Amino acid sequence: MARSNPPVVGVDIGGTKIIAAVFNGDGAMLSRIYCLTLGSEGPARVINRIKATIGQVIEKAGLERKQVGCVGVAAAGAIDINRGLVADSPNLLRWHNIPLRDKLADSLGRPVFMLNDANAAALAEYRLGAGRGLNNLIYITVSTGIGGGMIINGELYQGADGSAAEIGHMIIKIGGPVCACGKRGCFESMASGTAIARLAQKRLRRGEESIMVGLAHDKVGDVNAQVVAAAARKGDALALAVIEESAGYLGIGLANLVNLMNPQMIIIGGGVSKMGDMLLRPARKSMKVNGIDLPAQTVRVVRSQLGVDAELTGAALYARDMLRMKV
Amino acid sequence: MARSNPPVVGVDIGGTKIIAAVFNGDGAMLSRIYCLTLGSEGPARVINRIKATIGQVIEKAGLERKQVGCVGVAAAGAIDINRGLVADSPNLLRWHNIPLRDKLADSLGRPVFMLNDANAAALAEYRLGAGRGLNNLIYITVSTGIGGGMIINGELYQGADGSAAEIGHMIIKIGGPVCACGKRGCFESMASGTAIARLAQKRLRRGEESIMVGLAHDKVGDVNAQVVAAAARKGDALALAVIEESAGYLGIGLANLVNLMNPQMIIIGGGVSKMGDMLLRPARKSMKVNGIDLPAQTVRVVRSQLGVDAELTGAALYARDMLRMKV
Repeated sequence: MARSNPPVVGVDIGGTKIIAAVFNGDGAMLSRIYCLTLGSEGPARVINRIKATIGQVIEKAGLERKQVGCVGVAAAGAIDINRGLVADSPNLLRWHNIPLRDKLADSLGRPVFMLNDANAAALAEYRLGAGRGLNNLIYITVSTGIGGGMIINGELYQGADGSAAEIGHMIIKIGGPVCACGKRGCFESMASGTAIARLAQKRLRRGEESIMVGLAHDKVGDVNAQVVAAAARKGDALALAVIEESAGYLGIGLANLVNLMNPQMIIIGGGVSKMGDMLLRPARKSMKVNGIDLPAQTVRVVRSQLGVDAELTGAALYARDMLRMKV
Repeated sequence: MARSNPPVVGVDIGGTKIIAAVFNGDGAMLSRIYCLTLGSEGPARVINRIKATIGQVIEKAGLERKQVGCVGVAAAGAIDINRGLVADSPNLLRWHNIPLRDKLADSLGRPVFMLNDANAAALAEYRLGAGRGLNNLIYITVSTGIGGGMIINGELYQGADGSAAEIGHMIIKIGGPVCACGKRGCFESMASGTAIARLAQKRLRRGEESIMVGLAHDKVGDVNAQVVAAAARKGDALALAVIEESAGYLGIGLANLVNLMNPQMIIIGGGVSKMGDMLLRPARKSMKVNGIDLPAQTVRVVRSQLGVDAELTGAALYARDMLRMKV
């Protein structure tokens, strides 16, 4: 029994942090550690840090490497699951077609499975979080960027290569603001935390009054989504207006997804979702105005339940599934 | 054997025409008839015309009603498949929550299954047309409007209610032109036949020279997508420029779909797709510029193979599947 359901490692590689955890056969977390990604140092050093982190988290769980069944890796960006490549990652410098899966598998001597981080979070929310018991749902993470994952007919849908649900780069305003990807008018460029900061800074530079400037120690360039949220909670009119505008764009993206996928639920995670109803209430309203009635009435838009561990938990669940399919 | 695989009727209810056909157990078409929809007469008369058409096509096949296994109905608009309603149909006047499935089943005394028309075409192209042998594909019809259907993991994906793949009302330009649905900047308002006509008329009214005016008997208001296509085939510079602009928007819609679904193939049908490479070449180029590299390189964008009978063929295939699942 222990042999057929061994411990697994889940790893989340983000632009800021690498987090890893070991789960036992019952899904309980045995150990968890994290370190900074320091992506500016380039792929080779980051990959070494990932290897070291995995080694340490296994040790912290009191296990030996050979006792681990497999490793699941959730990484930001477009992942080619067939070839095990990080095809492109806007948050990781110089990562183009990096064969991360095989590099880790060779070094660790254990099977490694890799997927997109928001795909992993979608799987975790479906199995253990807000989406339990449903068949068709979409997970969206709204933070610096916007990512997504889809559960279709009770399974993670990854598409032909594994890059499905890249919802952040859906164009919703042709000719709109420049996105991190270089294109214009992407969902991410209109409704992410970065977009909220840009909207706020633009209006502050026009001379509109707000407590946001003080909260950012008089540096308008330091006004970010967290500052906007803090000011809005204190009733600041400009901060509230900025959130409402951005929520309107978020709702348009949701409407597009609802028209396309007619899901039972959309789960919203990521740092910006912590704004809660201040963001979600106007976003739901905009979704209903901009979506087709039938699917817009059906869908429930809720906050994620698993928080920062959703990605690594999903990576571990995915790796366990893949290992079973191989056996 | 005859009992387990009886003949089925497929019906396509569009804004212009009602087409019905009978297929035998091997899928061969035994009879086919059509009549005008005359949607302006309202739902009751249209439903009577649908009933009469189904009766006639069964008679034309030399069959009695009781010999027919079931009837599949493909209808334009948002279809609530759980309740058998035409929830909303922009091309059919005053159709809101019309219980078409049960009205037809009661009258015909045979099981009736209903689905969206572009969903039906997607199923037909997957089983019998351009998508044979693939697992994940999207069908798009570009005509007066834009509709869609998706095959996911080898099955028609309809979503929670049956309204999935309403790609025509995906917003790609916030604040863009007004769509038939009343919203602004929908994919349909930018890249459909209607949009092509509007773009051409706008530039003609500005005084730009073109043979299109002559082809439309000097009435700029009569310049439609067919006139634009005819002029472009003769090398008319303005017509070619209009098609290229519209193809650019089509490519942006394709890019959004490719980013979201990472499909193996996108199949383009509908009247506007008859323009062929004149439209598809610049559309593919725009898709690659505006989509994420990995999925945009994977997908093949091709023309549909089944033509005007795709919808009714798909409706018949769907009804046969549903009947089998019930038995």
